[in-house]
Amino acid sequence: MVETLSQTRQPDPAPVFILVGPQMGENIGACARVMGNFGIAEMRIVAPRDGWPNDKAISMAAGSPVLDQAKLYATLGDAVADCHVLYASTGTPRNMVKPTVTAREACSRARAEIAAGQRVGTLFGAEKSGLDNDQITIADAVLALPVDPEFSSLNLAMACGVIAHEWRAGDPPPDGFKPVADRATQADLDGLYQHFHDELDRAGFFYPPEKTPLMMQNLINLFARASATEQEVRTLRGVIKALAIGRGKARVERD
Amino acid sequence: MVETLSQTRQPDPAPVFILVGPQMGENIGACARVMGNFGIAEMRIVAPRDGWPNDKAISMAAGSPVLDQAKLYATLGDAVADCHVLYASTGTPRNMVKPTVTAREACSRARAEIAAGQRVGTLFGAEKSGLDNDQITIADAVLALPVDPEFSSLNLAMACGVIAHEWRAGDPPPDGFKPVADRATQADLDGLYQHFHDELDRAGFFYPPEKTPLMMQNLINLFARASATEQEVRTLRGVIKALAIGRGKARVERD
Repeated sequence: MVETLSQTRQPDPAPVFILVGPQMGENIGACARVMGNFGIAEMRIVAPRDGWPNDKAISMAAGSPVLDQAKLYATLGDAVADCHVLYASTGTPRNMVKPTVTAREACSRARAEIAAGQRVGTLFGAEKSGLDNDQITIADAVLALPVDPEFSSLNLAMACGVIAHEWRAGDPPPDGFKPVADRATQADLDGLYQHFHDELDRAGFFYPPEKTPLMMQNLINLFARASATEQEVRTLRGVIKALAIGRGKARVERD
Repeated sequence: MVETLSQTRQPDPAPVFILVGPQMGENIGACARVMGNFGIAEMRIVAPRDGWPNDKAISMAAGSPVLDQAKLYATLGDAVADCHVLYASTGTPRNMVKPTVTAREACSRARAEIAAGQRVGTLFGAEKSGLDNDQITIADAVLALPVDPEFSSLNLAMACGVIAHEWRAGDPPPDGFKPVADRATQADLDGLYQHFHDELDRAGFFYPPEKTPLMMQNLINLFARASATEQEVRTLRGVIKALAIGRGKARVERD
């Protein structure tokens, strides 16, 4: 092991991603970028083909803090020595007695395992051949993504990415994405509906008159679905007014 | 529209992915590859910066059938003309009144929408700036991934990839990944446990004798958790035999 973990360090609340013998720096960098996107902090790299550090990894990581903190190991044994649970990501079924889980199942299991104080690692093999059988053997379970069997080979960074996203997939959007605010009240909407009713009535839209309630229901239903804001109700009232009394006075045509 | 959809064509049962003004052929190809991995068949490309076809896209697609079938459009309006529902993928919150959903929520909604016969499209903006406000405005909802706000910018193909995977995330692993088969029966296991008991008893392992039931329980519990196969039970019985009667006769040491 090139670097030892401090004994006092708290376990990261996400699984550790372990790249075993990765070949291309570009993929290591792209993994680090997407791990950073989804808050998977800890990357471990076992014997990267082209040495370390790697300029292409730095370029593709786009400033991800995950790459700066990545740890380098000489062997898989060293890299997983402190892990309690391992998932082996592979696209190729092996003739091996081992439970298989999807990313969703693995994340669900890992959440419970981490909550119970266990350190969970996910193994990713090299681009060309993936994990070999010796490397898969030590894992608790195989992680197999629900791919099309006719076109099953994922890019390494993409495999990291979809599992990283799956870890967060139940989380809400970031705070900046606010729910629709300033919704109109029912009183605002009642004013709009009344305005619609009165101007459409003046325009002769309700014919035959006994259909008026149903026609109004249909209109109200559309606007209720749109979850309008206060500002939008004001805009719509301006639209009605413009159509009703504007230059060239609006014609109401009915099918 | 460069190519019209046949009137008789059945809607694909997955959302359509629409790349709006993509800049790099590499990203278009990587999108096509991961869409192929997760069985999202239909890609539409609006005004790609570097023209079409694109050699880098072909190279990065790694033979994905999605790229061959991708359709090219001059405008976003043309590309979405037949869609009933649109999700606009963006990493940047806008000052816009629009519901926001995560990929998981969007996929859940889209599944119901597609089941109801609607064609669903997901919009992806250009690498540099994403979708602009005019493009987002026409969507039913914003799709915002649960990213770290401090490091929120995903690679375009990665955004396509995590949403493509999310569409399939509830599916089982591919058929090649079989569940553990040839499980040992309880009778096989009883034979193993009895063998363990007899040889350990002969070796003086059970001390004091009244602890024998609890010590056996602990051993049995471990082997029950391991979900052994018939072959593994035979192997374990060979192990016991070798340790008990093998060359240099096994010593049993106890703490």
